[in-house]
Amino acid sequence: MELNNWLNRDMPEVAQKLEKINMDHFFKEKTIGFAGKEIVYKVLFHLRSALFPGVYENYPIDETRANILIGNRIRNAAVDLSNLIEKAFKNECAMKYKTLVERRDRANEITIHLINKLPEIRETLNTDIEAAYNGDPAALNTEEILLSYPSIEAISIYRIAHVLYEMHVPLIPRMMSEYAHQLTGIDIHPGAEIGESFFIDHGTGVVIGETCIIGKNVKIYQGVTLGAKSFPLDENGNPIKGIKRHPEIEEGVVIYAGATILGGDTVVGHDSTIGGNVWLTHSVPPFSQVYNSQPSPTITQSVPK
Amino acid sequence: MELNNWLNRDMPEVAQKLEKINMDHFFKEKTIGFAGKEIVYKVLFHLRSALFPGVYENYPIDETRANILIGNRIRNAAVDLSNLIEKAFKNECAMKYKTLVERRDRANEITIHLINKLPEIRETLNTDIEAAYNGDPAALNTEEILLSYPSIEAISIYRIAHVLYEMHVPLIPRMMSEYAHQLTGIDIHPGAEIGESFFIDHGTGVVIGETCIIGKNVKIYQGVTLGAKSFPLDENGNPIKGIKRHPEIEEGVVIYAGATILGGDTVVGHDSTIGGNVWLTHSVPPFSQVYNSQPSPTITQSVPK
Amino acid sequence: MELNNWLNRDMPEVAQKLEKINMDHFFKEKTIGFAGKEIVYKVLFHLRSALFPGVYENYPIDETRANILIGNRIRNAAVDLSNLIEKAFKNECAMKYKTLVERRDRANEITIHLINKLPEIRETLNTDIEAAYNGDPAALNTEEILLSYPSIEAISIYRIAHVLYEMHVPLIPRMMSEYAHQLTGIDIHPGAEIGESFFIDHGTGVVIGETCIIGKNVKIYQGVTLGAKSFPLDENGNPIKGIKRHPEIEEGVVIYAGATILGGDTVVGHDSTIGGNVWLTHSVPPFSQVYNSQPSPTITQSVPK
Repeated sequence: MELNNWLNRDMPEVAQKLEKINMDHFFKEKTIGFAGKEIVYKVLFHLRSALFPGVYENYPIDETRANILIGNRIRNAAVDLSNLIEKAFKNECAMKYKTLVERRDRANEITIHLINKLPEIRETLNTDIEAAYNGDPAALNTEEILLSYPSIEAISIYRIAHVLYEMHVPLIPRMMSEYAHQLTGIDIHPGAEIGESFFIDHGTGVVIGETCIIGKNVKIYQGVTLGAKSFPLDENGNPIKGIKRHPEIEEGVVIYAGATILGGDTVVGHDSTIGGNVWLTHSVPPFSQVYNSQPSPTITQSVPK
Repeated sequence: MELNNWLNRDMPEVAQKLEKINMDHFFKEKTIGFAGKEIVYKVLFHLRSALFPGVYENYPIDETRANILIGNRIRNAAVDLSNLIEKAFKNECAMKYKTLVERRDRANEITIHLINKLPEIRETLNTDIEAAYNGDPAALNTEEILLSYPSIEAISIYRIAHVLYEMHVPLIPRMMSEYAHQLTGIDIHPGAEIGESFFIDHGTGVVIGETCIIGKNVKIYQGVTLGAKSFPLDENGNPIKGIKRHPEIEEGVVIYAGATILGGDTVVGHDSTIGGNVWLTHSVPPFSQVYNSQPSPTITQSVPK
Repeated sequence: MELNNWLNRDMPEVAQKLEKINMDHFFKEKTIGFAGKEIVYKVLFHLRSALFPGVYENYPIDETRANILIGNRIRNAAVDLSNLIEKAFKNECAMKYKTLVERRDRANEITIHLINKLPEIRETLNTDIEAAYNGDPAALNTEEILLSYPSIEAISIYRIAHVLYEMHVPLIPRMMSEYAHQLTGIDIHPGAEIGESFFIDHGTGVVIGETCIIGKNVKIYQGVTLGAKSFPLDENGNPIKGIKRHPEIEEGVVIYAGATILGGDTVVGHDSTIGGNVWLTHSVPPFSQVYNSQPSPTITQSVPK
């Protein structure tokens, strides 16, 4: 079949069907309409470039121009972010912010709140960088961590997204955290509360749920899940939203690779160590050492004749 | 040493060596020649933008222009995809499609077939989005899922790639699924057959093999492997290609994080639950609950004096 | 609040605070200053495009122009890489290379050394591609592996980064390996020593530590960790850097998904097989078969009435 003819004659019907499915779907869900992921990523680029000038640029920058760069990055982030927040409020918070002016004011307020928090976020990220340096013998200096550790990527985005989550901004914090997940394999829900000096080594496969609480000086390795045990359903069989479902990890805890800690009532007491692949669904007191009483694997030999 | 001199004087010899290795290699393998990954990714961008207008754009789009956008995206995807398929057929299917005209006709046919299927794919993706909403208490609405769940990224690409796989298009479906893997950490072979209302939570580390069959309403968590036990070798010691090697998961099954289910004869009966980290290499009947009789980890305390 | 006013009036103070934090931090660490990740990624793009002409381009290239493309790619890579290395030496190796001329000479030398090694790297990558073909029944030809296997992405970047690591280039090899980690979920430290014919199937979650030694013909699956048991601290409680902490895997070993092998004294003898999820912290002799004596999971049924 000739492709161009088909594209001109028959394809528009396919496009129309797709449009209809999208319109029905979006209308039913009262969503904010057609929103682009790319703008959220652009905002994150500008914010992270302001936090760590030079790191995310295409070309090295001159130290003497750092101030100008930071200012420009913040300016760009602010305008886009405020627009995004206003859009996110449009339908989802229709009860709360009735007029465009109300929405715009609130969006500006939140944007300014976040930007004012950037220096504090940056100071906390210094403690996270320091924790990585102290926690990994392979790290030769803190610049290496800044330039090559997925931990810092994931945590810097989490700390930004968490501020927006706390201000009840819909959608955008989750889009940010999923971008971090995509970059690093580390999936931190923006609702989690995470203290300073946090380090995730390697990180691929880490999952930290929405209602986790993590104290300071916690170190976790790749493949660790801090998740939900199971979740109650409402009378219609739908999961009930907004319940504490994830564990609390007190300060100074180390959790080795592949450990799974589940449940909203589970508290891992401070200064505990959780061994690799441990499956834990109840609380343990402070200073606990939790290891699998792992039977040695069976070793046989098959020397070829 | 002066770099520019070296680049002008000695480097061309290195380039020539590299060219020779590539020519030898490509020639030996009778491959389609020099193909770019980026075009495959561009085709996917256009197709996914047609499925979910606005989501992948750099800027929010106007609802009234959705129809034009969808049409343009399909048009762009169609031309590039048809060229790619023709190229992929060129050598790999030399027996089957001898002339350029035959290859071009078949490439156009397949391209049109895929585009005609887009509305159906989009409807199925709605069931996947719904399944994510019902399966995750953290999801507040279906737009959040569309904009921030890796599950939808991976499954939308899988559902496109699977159509091309079914049409025996070489290479391109695998390039598409590997792109999804790169974005999400979810590795679904395009050959797998997956029913509607499929949800993968978090997803990092999930592997779904080529000959898997998955019923509808299945939910799986991060780190789940649906893989091969081992595979037979031919008389030359090479793995025999094209045998059923991966399990069948019937409808309504839930598989928790880190479970490994292996083997072409393994069937997980409908409405079963497979617990976290379970290692399963044989069939289980419907309504099974499969859990590790996990010995409690040993807990000791090391309170410092 | 009006956003523009705030940006003009109050924002500069935030920017100043951020600048100060960054200056203090960078100064304290004597780092190379403001370095961009993107240039490192660009160098990798050019080098990989020279190794595999066509694969990473936006459009398919003509075979007859492969030589020109390779030459151009190398030229671009060389100039940027030499500048990056010189910068990396600037502070970190202040003792060693005191003058700009010394640093520039050494940077050029190393750049030329790497480029001269490209044909050898490319030949070794052919053995890795061949290993993937022989190790995966789903692979239909070696071009499919080149175009769609994360293994080749990760290993090609590793083999480049390892050459720079051996030449004691600071920072840049780790930035390269972390880029591979981001693309593939496979985290190979550039310090590891890995023989030819190496294959990683699926790969998400694989971690290979800095002081690993891996023989030829080794195959590993997703989620395998070759890591450190624990590490000694110096008198100040800081981890001692530069000690052998990771295992040695002799030739012909296969390690299945999720296995964890730890410790600098651990040697897995040649032609051994390590089963899925095995936790191994001591040496095993050649031809060993190491499997978990896995208790069958408990299966119950819950048929609804």
